[in-house]
Amino acid sequence: MRFIAFISAFCWVAAFGQVKNSSNLVQYVKPIIGTEKMGHTFPGATVPFGAVQLSPETDTIPYEMNGKYNKDVYKYCAGYQYDDPTIVGFSHTHFSGTGHSDLGDFLIMPTTGKLQLNPGTENNPGSGYRSAFSHANEVAEANYYKVKLDDHNILAELTTTTRTGFHQYTFPKSDEAHIIFDLMAGIYNYDDKNVWTFVRVENDTLVTGFRQTYGWARTRTVYFAMSFSKPFTQYGMKDYSKGQVYRGFWRKFDQTKNFPDLAGRQMRMYFDFKTEDQEKVKIKFALSPVSTRNALENMRAEIPHWDFDRVKREGQEEWNKELSKITVKAGGREELINFYTAMYHAAIMPTVYMDVNGEYKGLDQNVHKADGFTNYTSLSLWDTFRAFHPYLNIVNPSRNADIVSSMLAHYDQSALKMLPIWSHYANDNWCMSGYHSVSVIADAIIKGNWKGDAQRALEACVTTARHRSYEGIGDYIDKGYIPADKNGTSVSSTLEYAYDDWCIAQLAKKLNRQDIYEEFIKRSGNWKNVYDASIGFMRPKMSDGTFKKEFDVLKTDGQGFIEGNTWNFSLYVPHDPEQMISLMGGKKKFVPHLDSLFTMHLPDEFFAETEDITREGIIGNYVHGNEPSHHVAYLYNWTDQPWKTQERVRMILKKQYHNGPAGLGGNDDCGQMSAWYIFSSLGFYPVAPASDRYWLGSPSVKSAVVSLENGKTFTVEAMDQSDKNVYVKKVLLNGKALDRRFITNEEIMGGGKLTFFMSPKAK
Amino acid sequence: MRFIAFISAFCWVAAFGQVKNSSNLVQYVKPIIGTEKMGHTFPGATVPFGAVQLSPETDTIPYEMNGKYNKDVYKYCAGYQYDDPTIVGFSHTHFSGTGHSDLGDFLIMPTTGKLQLNPGTENNPGSGYRSAFSHANEVAEANYYKVKLDDHNILAELTTTTRTGFHQYTFPKSDEAHIIFDLMAGIYNYDDKNVWTFVRVENDTLVTGFRQTYGWARTRTVYFAMSFSKPFTQYGMKDYSKGQVYRGFWRKFDQTKNFPDLAGRQMRMYFDFKTEDQEKVKIKFALSPVSTRNALENMRAEIPHWDFDRVKREGQEEWNKELSKITVKAGGREELINFYTAMYHAAIMPTVYMDVNGEYKGLDQNVHKADGFTNYTSLSLWDTFRAFHPYLNIVNPSRNADIVSSMLAHYDQSALKMLPIWSHYANDNWCMSGYHSVSVIADAIIKGNWKGDAQRALEACVTTARHRSYEGIGDYIDKGYIPADKNGTSVSSTLEYAYDDWCIAQLAKKLNRQDIYEEFIKRSGNWKNVYDASIGFMRPKMSDGTFKKEFDVLKTDGQGFIEGNTWNFSLYVPHDPEQMISLMGGKKKFVPHLDSLFTMHLPDEFFAETEDITREGIIGNYVHGNEPSHHVAYLYNWTDQPWKTQERVRMILKKQYHNGPAGLGGNDDCGQMSAWYIFSSLGFYPVAPASDRYWLGSPSVKSAVVSLENGKTFTVEAMDQSDKNVYVKKVLLNGKALDRRFITNEEIMGGGKLTFFMSPKAK
Repeated sequence: MRFIAFISAFCWVAAFGQVKNSSNLVQYVKPIIGTEKMGHTFPGATVPFGAVQLSPETDTIPYEMNGKYNKDVYKYCAGYQYDDPTIVGFSHTHFSGTGHSDLGDFLIMPTTGKLQLNPGTENNPGSGYRSAFSHANEVAEANYYKVKLDDHNILAELTTTTRTGFHQYTFPKSDEAHIIFDLMAGIYNYDDKNVWTFVRVENDTLVTGFRQTYGWARTRTVYFAMSFSKPFTQYGMKDYSKGQVYRGFWRKFDQTKNFPDLAGRQMRMYFDFKTEDQEKVKIKFALSPVSTRNALENMRAEIPHWDFDRVKREGQEEWNKELSKITVKAGGREELINFYTAMYHAAIMPTVYMDVNGEYKGLDQNVHKADGFTNYTSLSLWDTFRAFHPYLNIVNPSRNADIVSSMLAHYDQSALKMLPIWSHYANDNWCMSGYHSVSVIADAIIKGNWKGDAQRALEACVTTARHRSYEGIGDYIDKGYIPADKNGTSVSSTLEYAYDDWCIAQLAKKLNRQDIYEEFIKRSGNWKNVYDASIGFMRPKMSDGTFKKEFDVLKTDGQGFIEGNTWNFSLYVPHDPEQMISLMGGKKKFVPHLDSLFTMHLPDEFFAETEDITREGIIGNYVHGNEPSHHVAYLYNWTDQPWKTQERVRMILKKQYHNGPAGLGGNDDCGQMSAWYIFSSLGFYPVAPASDRYWLGSPSVKSAVVSLENGKTFTVEAMDQSDKNVYVKKVLLNGKALDRRFITNEEIMGGGKLTFFMSPKAK
Repeated sequence: MRFIAFISAFCWVAAFGQVKNSSNLVQYVKPIIGTEKMGHTFPGATVPFGAVQLSPETDTIPYEMNGKYNKDVYKYCAGYQYDDPTIVGFSHTHFSGTGHSDLGDFLIMPTTGKLQLNPGTENNPGSGYRSAFSHANEVAEANYYKVKLDDHNILAELTTTTRTGFHQYTFPKSDEAHIIFDLMAGIYNYDDKNVWTFVRVENDTLVTGFRQTYGWARTRTVYFAMSFSKPFTQYGMKDYSKGQVYRGFWRKFDQTKNFPDLAGRQMRMYFDFKTEDQEKVKIKFALSPVSTRNALENMRAEIPHWDFDRVKREGQEEWNKELSKITVKAGGREELINFYTAMYHAAIMPTVYMDVNGEYKGLDQNVHKADGFTNYTSLSLWDTFRAFHPYLNIVNPSRNADIVSSMLAHYDQSALKMLPIWSHYANDNWCMSGYHSVSVIADAIIKGNWKGDAQRALEACVTTARHRSYEGIGDYIDKGYIPADKNGTSVSSTLEYAYDDWCIAQLAKKLNRQDIYEEFIKRSGNWKNVYDASIGFMRPKMSDGTFKKEFDVLKTDGQGFIEGNTWNFSLYVPHDPEQMISLMGGKKKFVPHLDSLFTMHLPDEFFAETEDITREGIIGNYVHGNEPSHHVAYLYNWTDQPWKTQERVRMILKKQYHNGPAGLGGNDDCGQMSAWYIFSSLGFYPVAPASDRYWLGSPSVKSAVVSLENGKTFTVEAMDQSDKNVYVKKVLLNGKALDRRFITNEEIMGGGKLTFFMSPKAK
């Protein structure tokens, strides 16, 4: 027996070595990309779509104090800013790449020396529990983060499973070693955000509780279970609540020290240890949307041991598996890093919102059991319907199908009977415009990915789109556009509704619902109602049918759009570029118009209004950092100069994505920016999800093999690829010349090979 | 079939009529007793031990505003004060007879005319939604309350099932009929008490949600489902939160009108109707400790129809069943009213805290399923261990056994590993002193009532009693008393612990745990350590073993006691009166000492310090309105003058209990005052629960038949009973002369007859 075991172990090590060598794609993941300036990504540890995303906070500044907005908070959407000199602690939930934020639950910070319960300031880290750190002592990998906390002489390491964070802190010898547990801290915090906190010290290694907040999500509760590898010697709490309210007979207890039953609005806790030099104190920290009981069950199911390296390794193996769905050959390491980091960032959100036993909290705040699917939350649909969900349909179809099921469960639970706009921990935060769930649902069903009750799904789409009291839909139905005098984003919403309606029509057609098809295909033409032929742009229209007089085509604020001026948004007719171009004067007129978008100079006064992006995130007046333009470079495909799509796409890939911390020119937006990168690198892009077409651009990879869930592979090859050879001379699909500018979903999912012949000259 | 059904119905009606005539005991219940001054009872509708106790609020004044205590709030412990001229509304939860308070959840008020969302003031009811009313138009019965709301010309009627309140409002013809739903209102409210409120308007007749508060219970959430008999035409909400915090994209909605998804800290809602003259609008309002889903399930299970009269009738039948456990003959209707209203008040608390599906919320805030018992909450044990639980052991043993199971579940869930002090909706509010759960548990097990794992129960008692950090227990264990320099109620707690320890010892003896018996029988003698022989009273003792110098035997505040001065508390050795009397100088000295307690005059300055009672609640210096003296009148049984017990008991029965609204001289204290009345009326009293003895007094009934759950009956007869014949000449038990001053539990539960021969002369 022992001999056999020895042999097995030997083989396993050998096999592991081999696997590691042949598919160590994790080496190309740099979570640090996007952590400087506007990317709003985080460098911490997570497994794909993990519920726990354990990452350092470099500051926890309030969103507002006493009603006044603090504009610096915007930097901290993901909690970490690369330029900051200190780390405040490590919290368990983060959004990736958002432009507004929340979360940052359960901040933990290991310290030594005098106990300090306030975080202190950046300029004087010694004034609180925070610590200076340097990037030289920092490592950020997929599912692994390490940093030296200089002020405390502690090495911090983080890894995770889906629902459990694993901290490993290597202490110096100290009689005053502490774990600070800050239950006040949070991302985008403000005075009133912490609604309630409840903590139980179950024994000298186990703590449970919950945190209830009123933030971007309105009624949100996260439950936790925290287990220490070593008993604490003592612990305590300080309550920072401003208004002291009646505490009744709780006054008979000293709740500040070694008291196991705590609750309040603003609490910070500490746990004390004595440590030997280089002693590791480990913490497993599990979350649940439902209960502390479930959190504990999650922890016990996911990490029934204390082997940090094993959790790290298993998580990185999971990442390798995820990343190896596309095997890429590229010109250099920098491109591989861009590519696999994009794949990494496109596998962080949405997050699993369900316990190992299948339970989750619904919008009605009741506990539900997911029936045959994994429930997800954090769906930033205005961003992600464009390329991210179509990307999942190819590389992660089961997961995308579960996301569709999650959206329909959300609909079933919705008091408003609406599909999610921005699904956010048993809430909708209603962020941004449109009802783009319908695009994701239609796309998944039309592409044959989601296998549930499609008629029910259509019903949910239709009910949502007919919700007259929601953001101008009533007027939109009655007049064919949203009047500018009634709504501040009347034009962009009209355009987005028109596209969404087209998605519903496509779904209805597939399901032979002619009545619904006709209703919505008609609505999908409403974009024409806000086109002002006299200026050649989309323009706000008043209730009386006249266009709004004061109008600036470069300005964003107050012009009827959200995140984009009319130069960008006028091109937002993804479902009918042909007619759009025709209305704008035909192909000949359209090409120079589109050219000037990329070449004109946007004056600083107007740039200041474009949200979420750096100056580098803009090319001319083309704003890559904001989503409404993401299909724009592909529009040359509807003209006689498709080579300009090829040229622009390669330029954007080159200009907008870099290896450094400031490598993203705008918010990654929950994987949408990254999904754009992946598609475009492969040479095609889903201009209008819910159609089965991917429009060709110019691949930047040398080759790529997409391993599909159905067992087939789809290969992209770019012959004579180089930085100069950005133009596509010829395309073969499975060896035959392709006489069109798109490929279909069936062609991809059926497996096969797409060969691009690259050239330095425009065709 | 139809014929048979007709016959059955006929028989049923006949049978019902007969039952009604022979046992319409509900006629003797006057819920209005105790609603004036200090009784703190409520007049509204409830079934026995109902989770919903639906009752009018005559004001909703805040406990504190901006940190300042509002002493008038004390009047409103149960929400209703008889002298008030207006009714603010009807809420669904109330404590009965407490001296501190909470609850008052979900206030509903029907109005007509202009919509008003604030309650207005007592002096100017027209300034808000409240209404003037008069007692002439008010009916308060068991499970039925009716009142005319003068300002709105609405007849309001209330009835309930265990978990569902049923409102019936008869409106005048009106185009402006409203149901106000005040989610800010509550009993003992203050600025910060409402932690969170969540409401969903599911459709035009169904509303669900929850209310989370931070009151006497710290982390408390109550879920509801509200169903209207008639669709509302429109509805709306006003948010009264002071600090306006970030609401994100919720701003895109008008949440004030017909918006179905609401949440916030301070909300009031309204629902509008058009009514015909005399049209009834009915509301079913169910509660759950767990979820809105469970609340709805409770409602549908308990009231699957809209027949108000049926719910009222079934609830009153339930009361008749409850009351008919003791059939009494008395001198007159007034005594019957006192007796059956006492039985009524002794069947209101604790309340069922469990859904129809068996789920309830535990102290860990997790959802638990009660395994083989009904879970109860609102256990005011410092009050009720004395006579109320012993009373339940006789007339309601199954229920008391379930209460014991509830206490042990509480213990299992407790982070502090303690049995409940004051179990309060998945919380302990820690009110008052001692650990009197152990008395209730020991009493139930020793009397053979609770059939669970007794060793586990003993373990819970012992663990609780050894909790060194709880209220001086550590010092109490080490020194044999609680030092006065460390604790403000050092003497009363020492005395109460000593009695509780004796209970544990008795339980240990029964379970053959000699080790535990010895530990706790020793502890039970600790009362001697605070007895100062030099003054003949219990007295605060310092850490150094000397008695506290400054000491006033009449004063209550700051003397080492809670709710009682040393005159009263020095007699609190219920488990060993014999030795107590001996220490106090022997029987001869003790009798005049005890006499003077009843005959002395307590100066006003000291009366002001006795909480919870009216001047009438005091007899001399004997404070019947506070529990520590409840056994005192029975102490003459340990002297040569037991006739003084008989005389005093009859005097207290006569003086302290009346038929009017002001009929209770002090807080009813969750049935304890009432249980004292019942026992004493029957002629015996459990001086020391956990012993099997009931000490004889003087019955005030002519006869009483106690129908036991085991099918037997125990009869009390008082021969020659009259108001003057208060002395007991002779007692027969089952026809044989009783040569002792007590009867045993076995003698009662075995069935039989206790015959008192009454006389106008002291024996």
